[in-house]
This record gives sequence, C-alpha cells and structure tokens, in this order.
Amino acid sequence: MNELTHLDERGQARMVDVSDKAQTERIARAQARIVMQPETLAMIVAGKHKKGDVLATARIAGIMAAKRTPDLIPMCHPLLLTSVKVELTPNQQDSAIDIMATCKLVGQTGVEMEALTAASVAALTLYDMCKAVDKGMVIDQLQLLEKIGGKSGHWQR
Amino acid sequence: MNELTHLDERGQARMVDVSDKAQTERIARAQARIVMQPETLAMIVAGKHKKGDVLATARIAGIMAAKRTPDLIPMCHPLLLTSVKVELTPNQQDSAIDIMATCKLVGQTGVEMEALTAASVAALTLYDMCKAVDKGMVIDQLQLLEKIGGKSGHWQR
Amino acid sequence: MNELTHLDERGQARMVDVSDKAQTERIARAQARIVMQPETLAMIVAGKHKKGDVLATARIAGIMAAKRTPDLIPMCHPLLLTSVKVELTPNQQDSAIDIMATCKLVGQTGVEMEALTAASVAALTLYDMCKAVDKGMVIDQLQLLEKIGGKSGHWQR
Amino acid sequence: MNELTHLDERGQARMVDVSDKAQTERIARAQARIVMQPETLAMIVAGKHKKGDVLATARIAGIMAAKRTPDLIPMCHPLLLTSVKVELTPNQQDSAIDIMATCKLVGQTGVEMEALTAASVAALTLYDMCKAVDKGMVIDQLQLLEKIGGKSGHWQR
Amino acid sequence: MNELTHLDERGQARMVDVSDKAQTERIARAQARIVMQPETLAMIVAGKHKKGDVLATARIAGIMAAKRTPDLIPMCHPLLLTSVKVELTPNQQDSAIDIMATCKLVGQTGVEMEALTAASVAALTLYDMCKAVDKGMVIDQLQLLEKIGGKSGHWQR
Amino acid sequence: MNELTHLDERGQARMVDVSDKAQTERIARAQARIVMQPETLAMIVAGKHKKGDVLATARIAGIMAAKRTPDLIPMCHPLLLTSVKVELTPNQQDSAIDIMATCKLVGQTGVEMEALTAASVAALTLYDMCKAVDKGMVIDQLQLLEKIGGKSGHWQR
Repeated sequence: MNELTHLDERGQARMVDVSDKAQTERIARAQARIVMQPETLAMIVAGKHKKGDVLATARIAGIMAAKRTPDLIPMCHPLLLTSVKVELTPNQQDSAIDIMATCKLVGQTGVEMEALTAASVAALTLYDMCKAVDKGMVIDQLQLLEKIGGKSGHWQR
Repeated sequence: MNELTHLDERGQARMVDVSDKAQTERIARAQARIVMQPETLAMIVAGKHKKGDVLATARIAGIMAAKRTPDLIPMCHPLLLTSVKVELTPNQQDSAIDIMATCKLVGQTGVEMEALTAASVAALTLYDMCKAVDKGMVIDQLQLLEKIGGKSGHWQR
Repeated sequence: MNELTHLDERGQARMVDVSDKAQTERIARAQARIVMQPETLAMIVAGKHKKGDVLATARIAGIMAAKRTPDLIPMCHPLLLTSVKVELTPNQQDSAIDIMATCKLVGQTGVEMEALTAASVAALTLYDMCKAVDKGMVIDQLQLLEKIGGKSGHWQR
Repeated sequence: MNELTHLDERGQARMVDVSDKAQTERIARAQARIVMQPETLAMIVAGKHKKGDVLATARIAGIMAAKRTPDLIPMCHPLLLTSVKVELTPNQQDSAIDIMATCKLVGQTGVEMEALTAASVAALTLYDMCKAVDKGMVIDQLQLLEKIGGKSGHWQR
Repeated sequence: MNELTHLDERGQARMVDVSDKAQTERIARAQARIVMQPETLAMIVAGKHKKGDVLATARIAGIMAAKRTPDLIPMCHPLLLTSVKVELTPNQQDSAIDIMATCKLVGQTGVEMEALTAASVAALTLYDMCKAVDKGMVIDQLQLLEKIGGKSGHWQR
Repeated sequence: MNELTHLDERGQARMVDVSDKAQTERIARAQARIVMQPETLAMIVAGKHKKGDVLATARIAGIMAAKRTPDLIPMCHPLLLTSVKVELTPNQQDSAIDIMATCKLVGQTGVEMEALTAASVAALTLYDMCKAVDKGMVIDQLQLLEKIGGKSGHWQR
C-alpha cells in the first residue's frame, strides 16, 4: 500500500502519471531556518533598515527557484505556479533568519517541492551573501508545514 | 572590516569582482541530513538492495544541481567544476540519510555554494521520492564542513 | 488604487497571486528597433537575399527567449504560450531593423513580458551578429504596442 | 496542403499557433538504440546487478530532458507533461541497449518531440558513461513509434 | 574586410572560433533607459526609501541575466564572468530610470553582450514591476558605452 | 583497467575528477543523419533556396544545444567551448540530411558529448520542423567521427 510512487514495480525511477488526477487548488507552505552568529544577524538587520538587499536578494532567489523546481528535482512535474511568496523574518532569540515559502496553483499535482525548493534556495542565498563573515552558519528545519488540496487532502505538521 | 562583500558601499547587491584573485585549487565539503520515519528508511534501504533508484536519483540530482548553482544563487560566479561527488549513507541510529557533497576546481572563487547546493538538492530529491509515504521528513544540518584553498585558506567546522 | 502589484503591503517583491483570475485569451504585441550604419544594414539585407542567417538567427533567438521569460524576469509567472511570432523588417529610411513580436495564450496572466523579451533578445542577437562591423548600434523604442484580453481589456499605444 | 507548418508563407520560422486546438489526451512513444561492443554491454549489465547506476543515470537524464524539450527545440511549445517513462533494455542479440520513452499530457500539442528528446538524451548519457571504454558506440533507430490523440489521430510505425 | 564574423563563407551562422585568441582582461559597460510617467517614477523612488524592492529586483535580475547570456544569444560563447555590476539611477529630468551595467573577465572573448543583456533584462524587470500602473513605459538607448581589452582594443561611444 | 570512469568503486555515479588533467586543445567531430521521404527532402531543399529557415533553425538549435550539454548529460563537466560548427547537407542518394558537428576548446576534458549533443538536437529540430508532413523520419548514425587532444590522443572512426 504505502509504496514509493516514484518507483515502478521494478524499483526504477519514473515521473508518476498524474493524467487522471483532478485539477484542484493546491497550496503548500514550507519553512527553513538559517542560524548564524548574533553579529551576522545584526549586520543583516542593519542593512535591512538601509537597503535591505541581503533579504531582498534571498527573497527573489527563493521565488525564482520555485519556478526552476522541475529542472532540479528529477521526478517533479512541470507546473504553472499561480503564486509564490517568500518571507524572511529575523529571529533574535535563536540568532537566525526564519524563512517561510508559500506556493499555490490549480493543477494536478501538489506544490510541496516548489515551496521546499524556494525556502532552501532563499536560505542558501543568505549563506552566500554572508559567508565572507560567517562560514559556520547552519540551515535546519527545512520542512513542509502545510499542504492543502489534492487527493490526500489537508496535511499539517 | 568584516563586511558583507556581496553588497557595495550603498548596500546594493553585486557580484564581487574576483578578477585579481589567483587561480588556486579549491575544495569544499558540505553536508545535509534528512530525518524520516524508520519505515521510510527501511523502504529506501530495501530498494537499495534491489535497484537503488531512490539513492541514485538523489545522487544524480545533487551532482546536476552543483552545476546549476550560478543559475540559482544570484551573486555566485559561473565556474568550471572539475569534480563533484555526492555520497548518501543510511544512518539507522538517527533514522536518517546522511548526505555529503564534495566539489573541486582550480579557479578564482571557492566552491562552497556548489557543495551546499548539491547537498540541498540531493536532500530535496529524497524528500520528493518518499513524500507519498512520509510528508513529515525534515532536512537539517545543511552546513559547510571544510573549505580548502583561496585567500582565506583552510577552514574546518 | 494604482499600486505596484508586485510589491506587498511592506514593499517586498512577490509573485502576484493570479489563482482566481479567469482563463481568457491573451495577446500582446511589442516592438523594438535597432539603428545601425547604412553599410551594416546593407550587409544584412544582402545576406538576406542569399541565406538570411542574420535575420533567421535573431528571429529564432527571439522566439526561444519568449519561452525563457519566467527564468529571466523574477516575478513573471510560468505560462504556456500557444503562439510566438517575431518579424524583422529592414527599415532603409531610419537605417534600422524594425522588430515586432506577437505572443498568445489562453491563461490567467498576460503575455506582455514575453513579447517584450522576444523583441529585446531578437535585437540583442542582431547586435551580436553585427558587432564586429558596427559597435555603435543602438536599440530603442522597445515598447508594448497592444494588449488584448484579461481584466484590463484592450490596451493600445 | 502538405505544408511545413513551422514556416510561414514567406518561409520564416515561427511557433505554430495552437490557441484554437482542443485539449485532448496525447501520448507519444519513441525509441532509440545504442549499439556497442559486447564487452561494454557485459560491463553495464554486470553493473546493473550491483548498483545499476549507468542505466539509472541514463533513465533519469532522459526523464529530465523531456522536460527541457522547449528549451532545446526552437519551435516547440512549452507544455505540462503529466507522465514520462524511460525504459532501457539490454539487447544481447544486437549488442545494444534498447531505449523506449513514453510521454503523456492533456493539452493542445502533441508530445512526440518530448519522447524523442528523452530517448535521445538517455542514449547520449549511456554514451557518456561508457565512452572511456568504447568510443565507437553508435546511436540509431531514433524514431517515433506511436502517437495517440490530437487532430491527426492515431499514428503507428 | 568588414565581414560579419558570425557567418561563414556561405552565409551560415556559426560560433566564431576563438581558440587562438589571447586571454586578456575584458571590460564592457552598457546602458539602457526606461522612460515612464512622473507618477510612476515617484512611486518607485518612494518605494526605494522604504524597501527598495523594485530597484533591487531589477538589479538582481540584470546580474543573473548576464550569466544567462550564452543561453539566450545563439552565437555567444560560454564564459566565466568575474564581475557584474548593475546600477539604477532615477533620472527626474527625463522621467526615467538610467541603467548602467558593467561586466568583466579575463578570457578570449569580450563581454559586450553580457553587459547589454544585463541592462536589457534590468529594464524589462522594471517594466514588469510597474506595468500595472504604466503600460506605456519605453525602453531606449540600449547601447554599448565602452569596451576595454581584446584585439580591437579600447572602444568608447 | 578498462573501467567505466563515471562510476566509483561501489558502482555509484560521479563526475570524474579532472583537476589534474592538462589543459590541451581538444576537438571532436560527430555526425548524425535523418532519413526522410524524398518529398520531404525536396520540400526542405526548395525552402533552402528561398529562406532556408528549416536548415537555419536546425543549425542554430544544434549550436545552442552544444552549450547546454552539461545541463543535459548528468556527469558532463561544464566547459568553455571556443568554437561550435554545425553543417547540414542534403543527401539525395539516401533521401536524408547529413549533419556534422564540430566542437573545440582548450581545456581539461574532451568535447565529444558536446559534438554529439549538437548533432542530435539539430536532427531532432529537423524532425520537429517537418513532422507535420513526415512522421516516419528516422535519425541514425549518431556517432563520434574524430577526437583530437587529451591523454587518449587522436581517435578516428
């Protein structure tokens, strides 16, 4: 029953056939977190008050990456995202930036991978922008938070 | 001193000028981990004994993603990777797959982002291949382990 | 009222949510012009009578670029173009090549950016093909001519 | 009557306008074959029993390439594949690997080019993986086998 | 003498052979301008004081597009940009945003097309971000300003 | 000795480490052939005398595809092609178009895959342009003809 649907009966990878799935509205929310030195966070937050380019660059990179998901994840279907949103919130308590990505479409497959890819690339971009001052930053909690629509219905962490 | 080199003096994003940097051999090793239900891990490991397509797909996706890094991370320089290796090791103790990515080149910029991107996309691909049975999987410890070469020399976690 | 829809209430970039927009037929026509030395134009026109590869290359590059629009323009939605046409007309009077690009689809978002991107890349390709003989060529009048379909209706320059 | 539809009345390339075509289910099956030294085939088949990475890599490359078809073939429409399958079968008699690619969608254009591109890139990947031991391998019989759906109906070789 | 080097003796397009060219430092500066309603300009400038995402998005899109140049312009060589800078300056007098792009590398071919592509995509992104309020914006003066390095030496408009 | 270098000692795919290989000039020539109905060939040849867009489109697609090789073939290294040439010759005797692709660079890896990919995509593009009139066309003889440079020296079919 609980089969890995991306493998056929011989264990070989395939792009799952979704031809007969209904077109329904699908939403997925994913999160990631990048933990850093308090000084690095302070530097980003200060920049935010001036031009905000570190956060803006990560936000834009995340949005663009959501659109590249089928180029990156081998068995993902190409799809027509109708909305992508990436939010970056400085988290002083954990000395981190919290990342939340939301993707949406009306289609035959879910958008979990798109939301996870957006969150992941936004986090990697933050790493890239700040690695000159803090190579030890760690990305964690990259995970799906919620999924709405499709046969499996509403899923929430 | 400790400036965010991807921003100019006005806080605006730019691709750092590396024209005057020496061509040296650069190596970076990055890791990631995807934690899952023990049943999911067992299913992947069993598959491995037959065809191994879940792990093979993740490994190949990671290698291909390393080459796409400058398309994904806005301020990354295009570069000529001479070697990419992605290793996936089932970790029964933590009910996880451990991912290790190693990138190499002779060039003017480091390959940290390439190794991190490879590890991240390999992890996302594992998520995609198994999400039908385990939506709660979490990717964490996505981090640089080691960096060799370049002006900043040898860095190790 | 007249808000920049690509920014949320905090001024942050996002991909506008078009989930609730109707699927309607959309057409956009855009133009560009590349002004050059009369000798350069003569050389292209002469080539056209033989093999036409300068114009053919620009035409094909423009058509292919229309399909890459969501990879290039950060907030553009991926979409399914049903028709792309790029026309290049030598304009002896202004010593220029006039470029006209027409894009079409049935979908939830307009195709203005696709038509503009096609016109722009066709013009850049003409520049590339001829820059060995005329570095001073100038691209101008890159603009939308007409837009049909969608909530905002018919717009014409 | 029998016109090359990708050329307009002046012989210039264009992306055919499919705006008025009906959305129907479309399936295409294409094949390719790569002929090699018996020793090379034996080496791949032996590897298959262990980890299968040569065949797995080719299979995944083929699936991913199907999705890149509109980036590669200038006049191809972007489209939303709902299924891609690539099968590789060692053929001892002809000392070859037989490749079969099947693509599917509900849409306004056929998926012949996607199936042919998948078969072709799977074959090229096999060449790449084995060229260190057998540069003389030949890819042939790259052809459409069957096409279902669309105005032209069922076509079979 | 003054030949179109991208065409061979039969007028067919080819990627010019640069194998024997010397590796020299190459710099190119290109400009573009997007003319808009004074109200549109005011809206962007006001946004700039808050979050600046319109200008940041255009700047990042321009930098990323420079790296995609060989994917867009058929006869362009792939190359390793060592620096890309995109500057956007509100120009109240002409009711425009002035765009300046500078690209750099040490290599066998110039970077004019990369600088022109960056300027062009930054301009198109500004159009996209503001088209909801001002469809009539016009991009003009897309042109090379300066070129340093290579056999043809220093060229300046 | 005769190992599949793209697999490590455990049979897992990797991008071969070429860091220690010498930079030498490398040339590869590959061919392909697409066999068609005599009427189809006549139609293309007639078009050639007018505008030649079928052949021009295939030629340009082949050149562009050579640059995309590392995006398509998983274990291919990114590299800096210095020359790509695609020649298409109508072959009345075999009712075919003969395709010859030549790639060149100075680097650490060969360009066989680039030449084969160029030939293959040029052939697929011819198929696409003419499939409305001749679905039964067959691509064959896709093979390496010659390889110059690198440790393995001169190889010729």
